[in-house]
Amino acid sequence: MRCKMCGEKALIRLKAYNLNLCDKCLKEFTLRRVKRTINKFELLKENDKVLVAVSGGKDSLSLWEILNKLGIKTKGFYINLGINGYSDRSEEKALKFAAERGLELHIECVKDHFEGLGIPELSKMDKRPPCSLCGMIKRYLMNKVAYEGGWVLATGHNLDDEAAALLGNVLDWKEGYLSRQEPKLEGREGFSPRIKPLVLCSEREMAAYAISSGIDYILEECPFSQGATSIFYKGLLNQLEEQSPGSKLRFYLNFLKIKDVFKKDTPQLSSCVQCGYLTTGSLCNFCRLKSKIKKGGNAPL
Amino acid sequence: MRCKMCGEKALIRLKAYNLNLCDKCLKEFTLRRVKRTINKFELLKENDKVLVAVSGGKDSLSLWEILNKLGIKTKGFYINLGINGYSDRSEEKALKFAAERGLELHIECVKDHFEGLGIPELSKMDKRPPCSLCGMIKRYLMNKVAYEGGWVLATGHNLDDEAAALLGNVLDWKEGYLSRQEPKLEGREGFSPRIKPLVLCSEREMAAYAISSGIDYILEECPFSQGATSIFYKGLLNQLEEQSPGSKLRFYLNFLKIKDVFKKDTPQLSSCVQCGYLTTGSLCNFCRLKSKIKKGGNAPL
Repeated sequence: MRCKMCGEKALIRLKAYNLNLCDKCLKEFTLRRVKRTINKFELLKENDKVLVAVSGGKDSLSLWEILNKLGIKTKGFYINLGINGYSDRSEEKALKFAAERGLELHIECVKDHFEGLGIPELSKMDKRPPCSLCGMIKRYLMNKVAYEGGWVLATGHNLDDEAAALLGNVLDWKEGYLSRQEPKLEGREGFSPRIKPLVLCSEREMAAYAISSGIDYILEECPFSQGATSIFYKGLLNQLEEQSPGSKLRFYLNFLKIKDVFKKDTPQLSSCVQCGYLTTGSLCNFCRLKSKIKKGGNAPL
Repeated sequence: MRCKMCGEKALIRLKAYNLNLCDKCLKEFTLRRVKRTINKFELLKENDKVLVAVSGGKDSLSLWEILNKLGIKTKGFYINLGINGYSDRSEEKALKFAAERGLELHIECVKDHFEGLGIPELSKMDKRPPCSLCGMIKRYLMNKVAYEGGWVLATGHNLDDEAAALLGNVLDWKEGYLSRQEPKLEGREGFSPRIKPLVLCSEREMAAYAISSGIDYILEECPFSQGATSIFYKGLLNQLEEQSPGSKLRFYLNFLKIKDVFKKDTPQLSSCVQCGYLTTGSLCNFCRLKSKIKKGGNAPL
């Protein structure tokens, strides 16, 4: 198997594009693909600076590296979720990645915001599934840090993530979610712009990119992610991809073409009485949780 | 395992409804469900008479029986596709079903319309996949017979068929197909109304109904259906149903709630110069095939 670009020994066969690539050409291919994604969906304007949300995993660290290689000003942002050993091991990967490349990394710890409690304890206390709680806290902190610093927030969601989320939204026909699923959410008062530059790169391509680039990333999954519906949906889509290569990409791209048929739900937002960020109630979920802890877990929901 | 209705020994567990049923209660349940489907989607008006398209399989024969039990005037309609032994064996089942119940069955043979050629020969000659050709011919003949007799045409598509078709349409985001996927297509000039009264009944429920009712149906699948994409999609949806019972029904019903977001494509139609039925060109596909055969396979496409 030879690389279609340079004729060297190929590392990977990308059936979706009917393309064999060596490790060097795969890296160039991925770089070009991310650049094309940024241009196609107008993810960035000139002089935009990007806060890259990194988890220590292959997608976000690769994204950070790629954006740097594309000459974009970046800063990394890692949130330590306080999940036993997993959080420390993934923080270590993010720190090592930044140090080796001389990049700036901002770190926030969930425990610093919630009186020493991490996601597992908060989940138990709030009687809320850890993934839903974790999503809320991450979204809040990412948005706050990005918004206050004037950054565009970039996350490492890849094609498999987006296609799985899309499948989930389609199976339930969640019109509001479908209307908001796009590679860029524009910024507005209280909200930083959010972009997903890896939406056209499959999980397999990103793993190959990270390995070829010698990126030392955390292999273990979050212990709470086991049995997650998204993993199940990814499995279904992988069967589809196996049967008909390129299916995931078609599913996602054709969706973007027609997605404006779905009406946006525009909830009435007001400023949180505590932090000032926009929320649907009077107290945002983040501040509600904070005050619940201060009151010893007895605050009203 | 006891029947939830009568306490007798249950035959089947329907996880989607968290319901165990004995064979007698299952039959009543299915009858009520079809009746509810007809009412919910306003499939029939008073005094409508129904032409039931029967293939000899469990769904269409059960549908015919159910509509009769509901007191609706029906006639069966069987198309012999000229597929080796399969067509004769399925015709036999339809004939036997009708004879045992004293019901009227109208039969058309594809070979009578195409100079002795059946689907396999026509497919080779027309260089068109058999399933696409067969679909075109069946739709034409079903519509013609129903329209000219003033019948509402009913087909035996069950929930699994509809959910699989929906999944296929969603994976490609075929807006026109999505806009037309509903339990009833209204009649208009040249088109008979078409209804699908089994859309809320799963394949498994229909098999149990047919067996409980002692319906002798053809078990073998059409030899051309092997490897069909719809079977693959059904497999994916069955995994989903296994993981989360009721998923297929939710997927289909929630789609119907939002389906009006998809714009109908309204192709310009004119009368076929040969048969007079509506078509997008000057000659409809059915008549084009007929004339191609008369001219020895050399007619323009």
